[in-house]
Amino acid sequence: MNFNRTLNRSFNQLRNFEIIRNFTNQAAGSVLVKAGNTYVLCNASIVENVPDFVRKQVHCGWVTAEYSMLPCATKIRSNRESVFGKQTGRSQEIQRFIGRSIRSMFDLKLLGARTIHFDCDVIQADGGTRCASITGSCVAAFDAVNYLLDNNFINKNPICNHIAAISIGKSGSELLLDMDYLEDCNCDVDMNVVMDSQGKFVEVQATGEKSLLSRNDINAMLDLAEEGISKLINIQKECFS
Amino acid sequence: MNFNRTLNRSFNQLRNFEIIRNFTNQAAGSVLVKAGNTYVLCNASIVENVPDFVRKQVHCGWVTAEYSMLPCATKIRSNRESVFGKQTGRSQEIQRFIGRSIRSMFDLKLLGARTIHFDCDVIQADGGTRCASITGSCVAAFDAVNYLLDNNFINKNPICNHIAAISIGKSGSELLLDMDYLEDCNCDVDMNVVMDSQGKFVEVQATGEKSLLSRNDINAMLDLAEEGISKLINIQKECFS
Amino acid sequence: MNFNRTLNRSFNQLRNFEIIRNFTNQAAGSVLVKAGNTYVLCNASIVENVPDFVRKQVHCGWVTAEYSMLPCATKIRSNRESVFGKQTGRSQEIQRFIGRSIRSMFDLKLLGARTIHFDCDVIQADGGTRCASITGSCVAAFDAVNYLLDNNFINKNPICNHIAAISIGKSGSELLLDMDYLEDCNCDVDMNVVMDSQGKFVEVQATGEKSLLSRNDINAMLDLAEEGISKLINIQKECFS
Amino acid sequence: MNFNRTLNRSFNQLRNFEIIRNFTNQAAGSVLVKAGNTYVLCNASIVENVPDFVRKQVHCGWVTAEYSMLPCATKIRSNRESVFGKQTGRSQEIQRFIGRSIRSMFDLKLLGARTIHFDCDVIQADGGTRCASITGSCVAAFDAVNYLLDNNFINKNPICNHIAAISIGKSGSELLLDMDYLEDCNCDVDMNVVMDSQGKFVEVQATGEKSLLSRNDINAMLDLAEEGISKLINIQKECFS
Amino acid sequence: MNFNRTLNRSFNQLRNFEIIRNFTNQAAGSVLVKAGNTYVLCNASIVENVPDFVRKQVHCGWVTAEYSMLPCATKIRSNRESVFGKQTGRSQEIQRFIGRSIRSMFDLKLLGARTIHFDCDVIQADGGTRCASITGSCVAAFDAVNYLLDNNFINKNPICNHIAAISIGKSGSELLLDMDYLEDCNCDVDMNVVMDSQGKFVEVQATGEKSLLSRNDINAMLDLAEEGISKLINIQKECFS
Amino acid sequence: MNFNRTLNRSFNQLRNFEIIRNFTNQAAGSVLVKAGNTYVLCNASIVENVPDFVRKQVHCGWVTAEYSMLPCATKIRSNRESVFGKQTGRSQEIQRFIGRSIRSMFDLKLLGARTIHFDCDVIQADGGTRCASITGSCVAAFDAVNYLLDNNFINKNPICNHIAAISIGKSGSELLLDMDYLEDCNCDVDMNVVMDSQGKFVEVQATGEKSLLSRNDINAMLDLAEEGISKLINIQKECFS
Repeated sequence: MNFNRTLNRSFNQLRNFEIIRNFTNQAAGSVLVKAGNTYVLCNASIVENVPDFVRKQVHCGWVTAEYSMLPCATKIRSNRESVFGKQTGRSQEIQRFIGRSIRSMFDLKLLGARTIHFDCDVIQADGGTRCASITGSCVAAFDAVNYLLDNNFINKNPICNHIAAISIGKSGSELLLDMDYLEDCNCDVDMNVVMDSQGKFVEVQATGEKSLLSRNDINAMLDLAEEGISKLINIQKECFS
Repeated sequence: MNFNRTLNRSFNQLRNFEIIRNFTNQAAGSVLVKAGNTYVLCNASIVENVPDFVRKQVHCGWVTAEYSMLPCATKIRSNRESVFGKQTGRSQEIQRFIGRSIRSMFDLKLLGARTIHFDCDVIQADGGTRCASITGSCVAAFDAVNYLLDNNFINKNPICNHIAAISIGKSGSELLLDMDYLEDCNCDVDMNVVMDSQGKFVEVQATGEKSLLSRNDINAMLDLAEEGISKLINIQKECFS
Repeated sequence: MNFNRTLNRSFNQLRNFEIIRNFTNQAAGSVLVKAGNTYVLCNASIVENVPDFVRKQVHCGWVTAEYSMLPCATKIRSNRESVFGKQTGRSQEIQRFIGRSIRSMFDLKLLGARTIHFDCDVIQADGGTRCASITGSCVAAFDAVNYLLDNNFINKNPICNHIAAISIGKSGSELLLDMDYLEDCNCDVDMNVVMDSQGKFVEVQATGEKSLLSRNDINAMLDLAEEGISKLINIQKECFS
Repeated sequence: MNFNRTLNRSFNQLRNFEIIRNFTNQAAGSVLVKAGNTYVLCNASIVENVPDFVRKQVHCGWVTAEYSMLPCATKIRSNRESVFGKQTGRSQEIQRFIGRSIRSMFDLKLLGARTIHFDCDVIQADGGTRCASITGSCVAAFDAVNYLLDNNFINKNPICNHIAAISIGKSGSELLLDMDYLEDCNCDVDMNVVMDSQGKFVEVQATGEKSLLSRNDINAMLDLAEEGISKLINIQKECFS
Repeated sequence: MNFNRTLNRSFNQLRNFEIIRNFTNQAAGSVLVKAGNTYVLCNASIVENVPDFVRKQVHCGWVTAEYSMLPCATKIRSNRESVFGKQTGRSQEIQRFIGRSIRSMFDLKLLGARTIHFDCDVIQADGGTRCASITGSCVAAFDAVNYLLDNNFINKNPICNHIAAISIGKSGSELLLDMDYLEDCNCDVDMNVVMDSQGKFVEVQATGEKSLLSRNDINAMLDLAEEGISKLINIQKECFS
Repeated sequence: MNFNRTLNRSFNQLRNFEIIRNFTNQAAGSVLVKAGNTYVLCNASIVENVPDFVRKQVHCGWVTAEYSMLPCATKIRSNRESVFGKQTGRSQEIQRFIGRSIRSMFDLKLLGARTIHFDCDVIQADGGTRCASITGSCVAAFDAVNYLLDNNFINKNPICNHIAAISIGKSGSELLLDMDYLEDCNCDVDMNVVMDSQGKFVEVQATGEKSLLSRNDINAMLDLAEEGISKLINIQKECFS
């Protein structure tokens, strides 16, 4: 093989992954997550209210996510979505992905009639922003829930499990875990996987735009995902100790 | 097992699937696809122009999709997106999914500096609208490309392969191929798969919002997808004979 | 005279006009209307609610319409209004015209505090879309009202009368009933007329952008409208027998 | 009869009608028109440019109109359209009506490749704002064209004729010329007529929302319109003398 | 010095300033203010309602302003904000400035739970539109409050004081009071001052985009502002006598 | 006096002020500025292009700013502007203020035909965000210009001077430098001052919404501003040593 990864990473090696809790002091959970040069601020804030479509289920809560890139997160400055007047389709697709993933962590009936908003703002982008958003938001979720427990808003923990997310690519015949931006541009097929700490899958999204995936590819990529995610969940757990 | 499917379908049985070509006379390809009670009009129209980001690649074309539900496609009338002032996040996520899938069919360099727009308008919705959109758009793509070939706009076919898409769900311990709306609401996990006629995967999207997926689930669902998609591609081929 | 109409129609001859009821199964009334190559899907759906400005009149209902062209309804693909972010002025003008016309059919006090939405989506456009929308929506209105009567939501029919609409043009010295798109482009003056089955006028809109209308023109065009609309109302009535 | 008009006007009597030219000093034509208590500022401004769809016709110009009500033009303050984020359907329908009417005055080929914008801003509304906008814009059009002639931008007058507009209503069995707001609210049927100084019709829009119109009604209303418009055109002509 | 002002005004001379009350008959206060060739229509209308954030303070009212320029207010026609789909940043900045200024006139607790809207629409622009808006709105405020007092909606006057506003510029070493548009374009620094009749300052906004301001400049400009505003407040008072 | 400032600051004492350069690695200048608990990320990015209105001045550049608060920057989560569909008036007013201030630092003719965008994103808000944005953007401006000089895009420094900004309030009879959020809510009058390192004023904005300002107030507040800004400029200079 002859694909050299940045910083000589091996194919199944995660980038440096760092989780900084309590990055800001306003939100109930505030986590700055760094996956290599990708930095995402994941804030969890609690609103004592639920959307209309949840309201008819008594005592049931809701979990939702919004995702945005700061204009200077990328080498070429992107337009500010608020100035343009709407979110891009990409942002909407990603925030729906994050929202579904984080929601799967929760027993919404134990959350009570409140909403936890997860705001994922990409400070610096170098590939894997949606996965970093999920891995960081999971930690912010624990902090927000601990706030609710400590203040007796709820008395039973509504979180079922840790989750984390990672990307896997295939470039030629070679698989790559946790791609940076350059690797992502050069790879043929691309998979994002969200798993919990029991090894169960929350989301699998595989895309073969330049080249298609065989069943063997899918299997090998899922193997690699399992390996990476189990490391990420360990990092999550360490940051609470 | 005790889940009774509508019309007593067996778990691996597709709904009645019908493809009507030349449904309208304006677009280069115009297909009405019926998957049970889901009706989608898939129109392929050709514009002699490409978006800015494609222009720097000489002679390269582009393929893109838009998706929308008519307000009365569902039992409860939904708001018209143009009156509301923007597309929903759901519509945007789906049209990006369709666009990536159809784009994978093409060698864009053989298409020349033109764009094929795929407009997928859901006339009636009963589950599986995104998959029906892809399966129908594939046929519309062939008709649009034949128009280009017949009129000597291009002289080499840019389409690499047939593709089709299908949903698979899991309700309790039971797998279900090609769910209708009611089955979709009641299932725990949900997968959409797009494959080509060689058995290669274009897109796999698995979501476990209510319950998570084991590795075995994924394997069983992919098996079922392969079976369904191969039938759909046969139906596509028949409609050209 | 030397203006040859498509398919050798005579000046006072309607295009082939077809009304397909129950085209979809979700709306209370669902009609596909075909006027030559113009196809419009007219769906009537019932919402148990009225707009604020109607609410102060106890037991009074409301009737409203929305109109849109699918992007591929025309030879040159038009922008999707939801992507552009708003309806065009043309769409708004037409849907207000349809709304006023259909509303005139109803005794709103007999409808009860509910709204009937008429969604007119143009599948294929070849001139006369607003008139076809009205003629088709009238049939959908009957089906929606029968649904309300059959289910005892109301016990007295709030519909006063059939209505239908037709366009009349003048090209040189020649009058033309029910113009297709090409005829419309080439005519000098243009009139849209909505009438009921008693020969009373609901709307008359005459426009002389390229050339003005004399009083005699108006009279001759109204004569022709009366003739065409009476035929259309017969076709409407037949589709219920 | 027993309908008493405000200020004891007879059924065929216009309100006090006043045309003030050169109301502002920036636009090429600037007219404040007062029809009773309806005040509309009609500004004609010249832009040395035409829209894309006109450009292919060499040397051809364009004429377009925009209409808006100031928020305090009505007793109940209306929302400012720019704050709401879009024009109402009513504004769009009216400005298209004004635009078509004023455009009919012009031989666009004599105008040269430039656009005249007519901005009709309603300062105070008491019924008949669209008709006053047209009658006032006609005078502004003459001033704008004189500016073009005086400065040798064009050397042949592109205006074919004066036009003016008036509303006619029917309340019970009684016809009413030039209705104010209260009369408009109480009338059953409503007609807006635009005519030129030769007695030719530019636009006729008759609406029978509360009650329908017989052929006799239409004839009687058109008679009344002819009478009123001929008076308005005299007032227009006087303001140039 | 060698800067010649239009019409040979001296550096500390106001333009002709005229206040026309009751310009329209719908709003509670309606003032057309003319500062030289700048014309602004300032309408005060009363709504028996307050925004949400005011509601929790019992019996407290609110005062707010909106500002807009008619498209033809300037030599080069500007886009209509409602057609463009949003207000410009400039309009928003100015209307917030006007709103804060007029609000400072009021004891909001004496106003009761109602809102006074000030709509400032620039009919013709020749510099100083925001200042003319404030000076005119002050008079409209008195008329609106007198309406409330005369009709016993309130029994104590909530207005504390007259206010007026003026611009001061510096071009080279020379100060200029009440600049017109041409002077404004040519000046280096620019100050807008709002004061009350007691000589207290409501708003001071000084901007040195082309050249910065010394502390002496600020002092000299404030001196000039005091002089001009005291004259404007006299003109305001005269129009009530 | 009896107003106790947080952390026992004296009335003329700045909060802890920290400037972190190179906070992200994508923008030409990237500064995280901390003023007490207010954190703003100020990114300067260079685009080789200028807006239309600058283009006619050959070789002239442009400087512009955008300002936004992350939804969780405040205790109560605010709506994301891109989801709402437009920037608030407050954001627009502030970004225009920042833009004018930073622009005053530059000789735009020396910048060449390029634009520097300053993106000020508030990570955490505790009062004084617009002032922190300016003080931080000044440092980012130096870094961006050094990038241009080091890479020979320009060969003469277009920056004229350091600038910094500070707020001053008055609560009762007491002046307060650099207010935090709580102090800002409780103060009667409020001033924002931008100055350069020569003691010249770039912007002065004083607002007396709850209580007005005397000439003496203005003088005392400007004195205090001079003192604070000179300290801030020292901190700016230190971060380059």
